[in-house]
Amino acid sequence: MDFVVIGGDAAGMSAASRAKRNRPDIRVTVIEKTHDVSYSACGMPYNIADPSRPMKDLVVREADVFRKQGIAVLTGHHATRIDRAAKTVSGRTLEGNSFSVSYDALLIATGASAIVPDIPGLALPGVMVLKHLEDGRRIKNFIEDADVKRSVIIGMGYIAMEMCEALRERHIQVSMIKPGPGLLPWMDPQLSRVVQQELESSGVALYPGVRILDIKQGEKGFNVHGEGVDIEADMIIVAVGVKPNSGIAVEAGLETSAHGAISTDSRLRTSDPHIYAAGDCADAFHAVTGQRVWIPLALRANRAGWAVADNVSGKSVSLPGIVGTAVFRVLGLEVARTGLTVQEAVAAGFRPVSGVIQSRSRAHAHPGASQIWVQMVADHETGRLLGVQMVGREGVAHRINAVAVALHNRMTVEDFSRTDLAYAPPFGPVWDPLLTAANQLLKKIAR
Amino acid sequence: MDFVVIGGDAAGMSAASRAKRNRPDIRVTVIEKTHDVSYSACGMPYNIADPSRPMKDLVVREADVFRKQGIAVLTGHHATRIDRAAKTVSGRTLEGNSFSVSYDALLIATGASAIVPDIPGLALPGVMVLKHLEDGRRIKNFIEDADVKRSVIIGMGYIAMEMCEALRERHIQVSMIKPGPGLLPWMDPQLSRVVQQELESSGVALYPGVRILDIKQGEKGFNVHGEGVDIEADMIIVAVGVKPNSGIAVEAGLETSAHGAISTDSRLRTSDPHIYAAGDCADAFHAVTGQRVWIPLALRANRAGWAVADNVSGKSVSLPGIVGTAVFRVLGLEVARTGLTVQEAVAAGFRPVSGVIQSRSRAHAHPGASQIWVQMVADHETGRLLGVQMVGREGVAHRINAVAVALHNRMTVEDFSRTDLAYAPPFGPVWDPLLTAANQLLKKIAR
Repeated sequence: MDFVVIGGDAAGMSAASRAKRNRPDIRVTVIEKTHDVSYSACGMPYNIADPSRPMKDLVVREADVFRKQGIAVLTGHHATRIDRAAKTVSGRTLEGNSFSVSYDALLIATGASAIVPDIPGLALPGVMVLKHLEDGRRIKNFIEDADVKRSVIIGMGYIAMEMCEALRERHIQVSMIKPGPGLLPWMDPQLSRVVQQELESSGVALYPGVRILDIKQGEKGFNVHGEGVDIEADMIIVAVGVKPNSGIAVEAGLETSAHGAISTDSRLRTSDPHIYAAGDCADAFHAVTGQRVWIPLALRANRAGWAVADNVSGKSVSLPGIVGTAVFRVLGLEVARTGLTVQEAVAAGFRPVSGVIQSRSRAHAHPGASQIWVQMVADHETGRLLGVQMVGREGVAHRINAVAVALHNRMTVEDFSRTDLAYAPPFGPVWDPLLTAANQLLKKIAR
Repeated sequence: MDFVVIGGDAAGMSAASRAKRNRPDIRVTVIEKTHDVSYSACGMPYNIADPSRPMKDLVVREADVFRKQGIAVLTGHHATRIDRAAKTVSGRTLEGNSFSVSYDALLIATGASAIVPDIPGLALPGVMVLKHLEDGRRIKNFIEDADVKRSVIIGMGYIAMEMCEALRERHIQVSMIKPGPGLLPWMDPQLSRVVQQELESSGVALYPGVRILDIKQGEKGFNVHGEGVDIEADMIIVAVGVKPNSGIAVEAGLETSAHGAISTDSRLRTSDPHIYAAGDCADAFHAVTGQRVWIPLALRANRAGWAVADNVSGKSVSLPGIVGTAVFRVLGLEVARTGLTVQEAVAAGFRPVSGVIQSRSRAHAHPGASQIWVQMVADHETGRLLGVQMVGREGVAHRINAVAVALHNRMTVEDFSRTDLAYAPPFGPVWDPLLTAANQLLKKIAR
């Protein structure tokens, strides 16, 4: 039995390693186009923030560790074509040699790529994306080699925010610019304003809604030229989003769904039963809407990799849906979400009702408390809880998980409002901010 | 309509205030034996820790605020008898005058009392319990007046731990002593050892399993004399537990259940349909076992107070069960639990299986990570999740809530292991410690 994996990051290496552990008789081959496997991509901004730590700290396990486990890891191999009739994957090595590998079961775990917008000047050497470990190394070296003091980040999403924090920690000036309107447009304005104030109070200049015309090499660094805005910078990070690497699947005639991600069923099978897809290239079922969605996140990639391994090893594992739980830190703030925004709820056919509350991170009269903002969204007819967004200085990142579990169980706001959550003065008010949000939202829900 | 409340703390004042807001025509009377209403009892250790903050910071709302709302607040009134036939509550004021109040609906919210063990010398002036705000004031004044440098805490439960932290913050030596075996006996030994090490590394002397023979006034402070142990101290705190104040209910012929707490149904009615009970004097339904239990905690008291108010106001509100979620901080540790321990699971008729895992509070290679220990308990036959205990330096207090919500929904460990929890490097590993615990425990569960 030959199990071949295209892509050696979270989903791919999780699948390869677990398949080999499940059944040592399976021959497992991983085809990876870069030289790096199994690294913590999400850790790159934090590593860039700290000049004393080498980028290789982020490697969870070296390719040789997997090789010792009996897995054939072909790094520097770029898979370009799947022949479904012959059941082969072929491509070229970085040295230009062609290769071909046969499979009984194939996993496509090709991940996602940074979107590069069409702006003149993006090919300049100080303009970089952050996606692969090699990108992280390049940015980190560039900061030192070019003695970067001023930066521009194009984009204002999760990765843009994390890179902003990293660069501020290195005392680099940051300007953030994006053509679309507003910071974090999926967020409730009351919450995104908190993030905006945090960025501005740290000296970050924000230019939302500014179309970028071109980037030019100036006398002292680069010049980012937007509509009505000119910014000088020593380095430019492009973080406008990612797209699924589904090209090889599309060319093989496999079906795709949301955002062009590879369609999978609950067992992670594509439209070809011998081919699985997992990780940032694959879609998933949203447990709140029941629709196929593309929300590329690390936990799902790891979990889907394991499920593929189990299915390939002869078990039958079906994954339930995701609920879109995500968290990030930016400067002193924790920002989290799970489930649907109001707009997403409307698009999915709900009649959403929502409310924002302000609560505190510690009990009445407990020192060191800070504010927590919670937006909660529910369906007006059924009272079903649909989603939550939160912002605060502490106690946000892990609190969101209670809502995620509630969404998996299709709880109503009323039932959630009566859950027995933890209380002690250092950790929150007697009524947890989530319970206060639920209690308030209940008043708006039809009975 | 006369709604009378005995007891002016969390449950009582929540009920009184909400009933008046619900229906201003209800005449609401609160009978409180002390001079304090509506204060944060749980905040007392943290207030004692800080000499600069007055104890009255803990008062959430003064009695006069409730009076302005139209509620008759009778402080210094000790209710001693309920006449169910005549529907009256009678008693004596602190000045010795007798009083009697008629009710249409009555709420007993008499709370709990500190258990005072039968040890000679407990009446000495430097030996104190911590239950009412007056106790907190007395301890805080005593620390200053007697220039306390050495203390003994009798007991090792939540309040003992919080008082230990408070006294250590004031640089007071702490010895903890209890006759029963082991620190936090409900905890898995692997986890309670972590707490023990934390206490010991902070210089706290622990004497578990030591019977206390007597306490005597010595030349320099007090002498706590136990079997094989003599400890000198300037102050002794007795924190061996609490018991429900159900005497007035028992004398009125109302039914009681676990630990002598007042029996209530899901609408918080006692065995007399005109009399409700809520807060630390009342029992509750445990959503995991289906049994009546007595777990006196602040959130339940507030929530039950509201539910009584709604029922008295003509709505019909039933509360679901509790799951026993609790958290406390001790020195640098967060300790949390929800659901059942192995012993409780056995007692409730389950066939429990459990496991302990060690994980980390931040991602691979993220600076500042510390260890998190998770014990998870499940039913071997059904795979149902029954309970979790956690200990760690960060990320414990709010994480437990995800499990609490899972317990309310009777999730299996397998379903829980597939929930979409949040991930970002500063806040945990890709696989949340709770998911790792679930993944490991799954291996022990019959399929």
